[in-house]
Amino acid sequence: MNAFGRKFRISVFGESHGAAVGAVLDGVPAGTELDEQDLERDLIRRKSGAFGTTRRKEEDRPQILSGVLGGHATGAPLAIVFRNRDVRSSDYTLFKEVPRPGHADFVAGVKWHDFNDPRGGGHFSGRLTLPVVAAGAVAKKILSPKMTVSACLVSVGGVGRAEALARAMERGAASDGPDENIGSGDPSQCRFSDSELWRPELESALAEGDSLGGVCECTATGVPVGLGEPFFDSVESLISHAVFSIPGVRGIEFGDGFRAASMRGSEHNDPIVSADGRSPRNGAGGVNGGITNGNPLVFRVAFKPTSSIRKLQHTYNFTSGKVEDLEIPGRHDVCFALRSPVIVEAMTALVLADLSLL
Amino acid sequence: MNAFGRKFRISVFGESHGAAVGAVLDGVPAGTELDEQDLERDLIRRKSGAFGTTRRKEEDRPQILSGVLGGHATGAPLAIVFRNRDVRSSDYTLFKEVPRPGHADFVAGVKWHDFNDPRGGGHFSGRLTLPVVAAGAVAKKILSPKMTVSACLVSVGGVGRAEALARAMERGAASDGPDENIGSGDPSQCRFSDSELWRPELESALAEGDSLGGVCECTATGVPVGLGEPFFDSVESLISHAVFSIPGVRGIEFGDGFRAASMRGSEHNDPIVSADGRSPRNGAGGVNGGITNGNPLVFRVAFKPTSSIRKLQHTYNFTSGKVEDLEIPGRHDVCFALRSPVIVEAMTALVLADLSLL
Amino acid sequence: MNAFGRKFRISVFGESHGAAVGAVLDGVPAGTELDEQDLERDLIRRKSGAFGTTRRKEEDRPQILSGVLGGHATGAPLAIVFRNRDVRSSDYTLFKEVPRPGHADFVAGVKWHDFNDPRGGGHFSGRLTLPVVAAGAVAKKILSPKMTVSACLVSVGGVGRAEALARAMERGAASDGPDENIGSGDPSQCRFSDSELWRPELESALAEGDSLGGVCECTATGVPVGLGEPFFDSVESLISHAVFSIPGVRGIEFGDGFRAASMRGSEHNDPIVSADGRSPRNGAGGVNGGITNGNPLVFRVAFKPTSSIRKLQHTYNFTSGKVEDLEIPGRHDVCFALRSPVIVEAMTALVLADLSLL
Amino acid sequence: MNAFGRKFRISVFGESHGAAVGAVLDGVPAGTELDEQDLERDLIRRKSGAFGTTRRKEEDRPQILSGVLGGHATGAPLAIVFRNRDVRSSDYTLFKEVPRPGHADFVAGVKWHDFNDPRGGGHFSGRLTLPVVAAGAVAKKILSPKMTVSACLVSVGGVGRAEALARAMERGAASDGPDENIGSGDPSQCRFSDSELWRPELESALAEGDSLGGVCECTATGVPVGLGEPFFDSVESLISHAVFSIPGVRGIEFGDGFRAASMRGSEHNDPIVSADGRSPRNGAGGVNGGITNGNPLVFRVAFKPTSSIRKLQHTYNFTSGKVEDLEIPGRHDVCFALRSPVIVEAMTALVLADLSLL
Repeated sequence: MNAFGRKFRISVFGESHGAAVGAVLDGVPAGTELDEQDLERDLIRRKSGAFGTTRRKEEDRPQILSGVLGGHATGAPLAIVFRNRDVRSSDYTLFKEVPRPGHADFVAGVKWHDFNDPRGGGHFSGRLTLPVVAAGAVAKKILSPKMTVSACLVSVGGVGRAEALARAMERGAASDGPDENIGSGDPSQCRFSDSELWRPELESALAEGDSLGGVCECTATGVPVGLGEPFFDSVESLISHAVFSIPGVRGIEFGDGFRAASMRGSEHNDPIVSADGRSPRNGAGGVNGGITNGNPLVFRVAFKPTSSIRKLQHTYNFTSGKVEDLEIPGRHDVCFALRSPVIVEAMTALVLADLSLL
Repeated sequence: MNAFGRKFRISVFGESHGAAVGAVLDGVPAGTELDEQDLERDLIRRKSGAFGTTRRKEEDRPQILSGVLGGHATGAPLAIVFRNRDVRSSDYTLFKEVPRPGHADFVAGVKWHDFNDPRGGGHFSGRLTLPVVAAGAVAKKILSPKMTVSACLVSVGGVGRAEALARAMERGAASDGPDENIGSGDPSQCRFSDSELWRPELESALAEGDSLGGVCECTATGVPVGLGEPFFDSVESLISHAVFSIPGVRGIEFGDGFRAASMRGSEHNDPIVSADGRSPRNGAGGVNGGITNGNPLVFRVAFKPTSSIRKLQHTYNFTSGKVEDLEIPGRHDVCFALRSPVIVEAMTALVLADLSLL
Repeated sequence: MNAFGRKFRISVFGESHGAAVGAVLDGVPAGTELDEQDLERDLIRRKSGAFGTTRRKEEDRPQILSGVLGGHATGAPLAIVFRNRDVRSSDYTLFKEVPRPGHADFVAGVKWHDFNDPRGGGHFSGRLTLPVVAAGAVAKKILSPKMTVSACLVSVGGVGRAEALARAMERGAASDGPDENIGSGDPSQCRFSDSELWRPELESALAEGDSLGGVCECTATGVPVGLGEPFFDSVESLISHAVFSIPGVRGIEFGDGFRAASMRGSEHNDPIVSADGRSPRNGAGGVNGGITNGNPLVFRVAFKPTSSIRKLQHTYNFTSGKVEDLEIPGRHDVCFALRSPVIVEAMTALVLADLSLL
Repeated sequence: MNAFGRKFRISVFGESHGAAVGAVLDGVPAGTELDEQDLERDLIRRKSGAFGTTRRKEEDRPQILSGVLGGHATGAPLAIVFRNRDVRSSDYTLFKEVPRPGHADFVAGVKWHDFNDPRGGGHFSGRLTLPVVAAGAVAKKILSPKMTVSACLVSVGGVGRAEALARAMERGAASDGPDENIGSGDPSQCRFSDSELWRPELESALAEGDSLGGVCECTATGVPVGLGEPFFDSVESLISHAVFSIPGVRGIEFGDGFRAASMRGSEHNDPIVSADGRSPRNGAGGVNGGITNGNPLVFRVAFKPTSSIRKLQHTYNFTSGKVEDLEIPGRHDVCFALRSPVIVEAMTALVLADLSLL
């Protein structure tokens, strides 16, 4: 179902080219300070416009319909709505007949008996992440100031951030010192525009009508010991559940992640060095037995390259019954992973807010 | 909470050294053919005893307390219990004072105010996967014969299956031809004992009192188009939620997984080539937009090395207030990943059974 | 939480004098025929305006923000919003200081630390039943044509419908024959305006600045055998759960209800007389062991008299610390039970739609 | 599904004549003092044996399989099992063919395609209330000492408790003063054996092979202001949901209940008379707007007469296709309502424990 959470709960609704997208948040603690401006900072981070992102421009102004009075949450459900405006639906009518590779066109048609809304991806659109980001901003207010959640791209198109940064400095695109905080558990400090760092890869893909993927790392600090359950609501279970709802995610790993499978126990085990559970290494990514251990929560998310590409592809035409050529027009991100960090943060904040209120 | 599923639901309970471990399954369709022997095949696969696994021997005989009559599920909840017998609790009393690196000793103590059961890992023990495997066997009966779920180790200690196999054939340990089905979407056909394939790595780790991790690949075939929801109950969300409940999982990836983040859209997109949605490549791992697309569901799970090792480690002693040496006695798997495939299958079958009944 | 349902799920939001009230419906089957006009019939029945109901006038026009395209549900969540317009908030500011007897003023203030929205009852207002009625209309479309749900007042202010009808005919207010269908399992056929039938009681209460309660009977026909679960999701459990969410409900009883407690088994037991489970008596109200038995589902709901009355009352003043006189101004229903039948129908339809889709 | 609760959750399983009945309790706070003796007091109250109850004798000894160590809850799920022993299954084989009036035989057969366990009512048996009572005893430990929950019969076979008491004193069966606490909000003080009070009614019904119903009143004291949610998890919603899971319930009403529908607002409204929300009248039964108001929670539950009676009945024979005579042999309660108070208390305690832990 289109809802998630136990005590702090989000329900999302909407379609890319319908009247609106939105979310209902249930369980926001009464008294949480909130107004529409509070959501702005994160909504701007999600916005398109940077090099490598779609040229669709939406004002993305949230309307809070309920649950807030005089700048505070009332305790009742909070409904947030975003009206859709810059919509060009004629682009999409074809895709019930010729489903786009990598998209949900085919599965939505089968699942919903061709009653699905195909315009702009309908309910499957990345535009649904807009209310998620707004909800995440509310969740961050609940966690604040104790916990912080921040995410950052660590690679795009297979090129790591350190390498991209070195190149950018060489070509003078990044002049005020290294963004050394990456990997240090504080990705909120990523000081350089991601689209600037990976501009060569993005330009090359754009020129070829192709697209790129990327990997996003998320870190939460200030997380107390004891959040999560051994079975089935481990912290990793809940975060991965939320994160795999973001369109285009292919994988998630915590701490040492897949690398842990090649390590020995004596390398991977985190020694505890203080009474508050701190470990200098944090190969577990801040979780033992499904429960937070007081170290920063660290995980990485793999995003696939944007499915909609200008480059010629082949797919099945359900009318002709043949495999045919397909060129996808319209406005698309070359690399939607560029916009992913704030979405990953939002999902993480939703989970942590729920767990911390239980 | 210790439960999972919407229409087909599992609740687990029990501790490693308590009276029993077990599960309650709600929503088993009336008429499903079932008896205790049906669970045997998978329970044996999970059992310890192979080279590289613990020497703790449990009979692991399930008692079905309810929900089955005359060889069929009745429609009422099915309770399965396994009594614990081969228990040596004196091994564990120390670990409230000196929490083991990589274990839940510390977090459980904080979360449950030192009322947690520390014996054998208590409720955090891998022994809880025993009722999960039994439940998975029931889920497979629900899916059968249409869908199959099978998993297999694809690497141990950083050595891939193909390489391990080539070596094993060389030394004469595997003589009846390659287990070529790995990677072909049918890991159920893994014909060689995993502990035989990776015997050199296991022997070396055992000799050093150390442990190994591994990667398990799971494939489900016969999955119809249309299972899962776009938000928040995508197939990947539900499977990762279930899989991260297995102790020791560090990562999960679907289809091309993390590799997708380095690919271009034109490489990663799966062209559809027939009216039933088939794609020759399946880089999406059988899911688009969170919904199954009719291709085999394929994902990989990274398991960390066993946390309990004989080799000397350091950790904090809460009585002395100092970091001290720790040697862990007792009977442990050198590589618990060896026992993981049937557990991963069980979790997958639980999710697919729930989705297919909704 | 402000949500209900397992496969067909409603979340409500909004406040009486805020921007809007609304609901998100998840799980509407793709292809269900729907448009805003479909909701009209029931929304009009809920509307105020009849004698004995409040003079607050709202246009009550639903906006469907998502989930419907071309007159059909798409399969994605359906969001319905009603903007509030005819709002006079100055009436309500007093009630944080002097909580009204029978209202949620006091409990909401304590629960939500005085951040609750007091205007018009805020989230506790009967206005929240507006999106419930709209959702119920959607649920009825799902049930249609197989199942029908209809409710009718059977007493107001202690005067039964039959007696009220006889009196009304006597005074010429009801001239076209008895509404004999009441009690026959088909309350949809109530042909007389309820406010006309009980006009004497309503006029008397209005004159005295007082209010009246009533009892509503609901019948669902065409319900198949087998909906509901023995524990804990019996049909009575789910319906009572939903019905007690309606503000002002004091009791619910199925079939013979409280009268059954004075009967003998030989009187109360329903003999089965045909292979489809029919019983001539239906003292069980259509449910055995928590599961529908194929007979009409019949239950009655007791509504208290409207809490807001003009007549002088006493209550505690939290500023003065004394019990003081209170006169409540504003526009209120003399008997909100007059508007309850369509709300009870809506809750019933929501439950039956959920059960029939599982 | 056979589970209930959000943070403190019960799952029940078992059949009357199967191997066992039991429950899994998830969310018991670590450190709650508990052992098997703690459950005894309530289990004895539920036991048969008093005049008017079945002669089936079960030891009803609970086995706690998990979640308790050294007399305290560990924080992990608590599984309680009761083995069935005194089983006479030959009594029941007939009822698939000739479903008993008032029983679930027919609906279970249809719902579960004749795979249901018919022996002793199977999963529909009142025996399932045994683990519920044990779970309720755990819930009471969580609520204790702040909150108390107690229930008492207020009428049997249509004869009120006061009248029954007066008669009993007259005939010398109740000699040590009136049980005046009934109606005073403290039914825990019911000092007289219920089966003694209503002995004349019970004897008469027994002689005729018939059965009786009754009404049970439940009161919870010490309930803080603020438990429950306006929509959909009102306190009345949750309690009625739980209570209607008890076999044989026909109605529930809070405070003035159905009588409120005949009252005027000026009579029914509870004036608040102190800063802690107290009202001298409590016609609301301790709840406003779905949220507890600090006054005792008071509600009544109507139980039907036992369905299984010796007296001749008629029902449909699915083999012959005719309505035929039926005499039900076996051991049954003349009035199972005699055993209901502790079950109603258990359900109430489960709800209050869940709400108080959220």
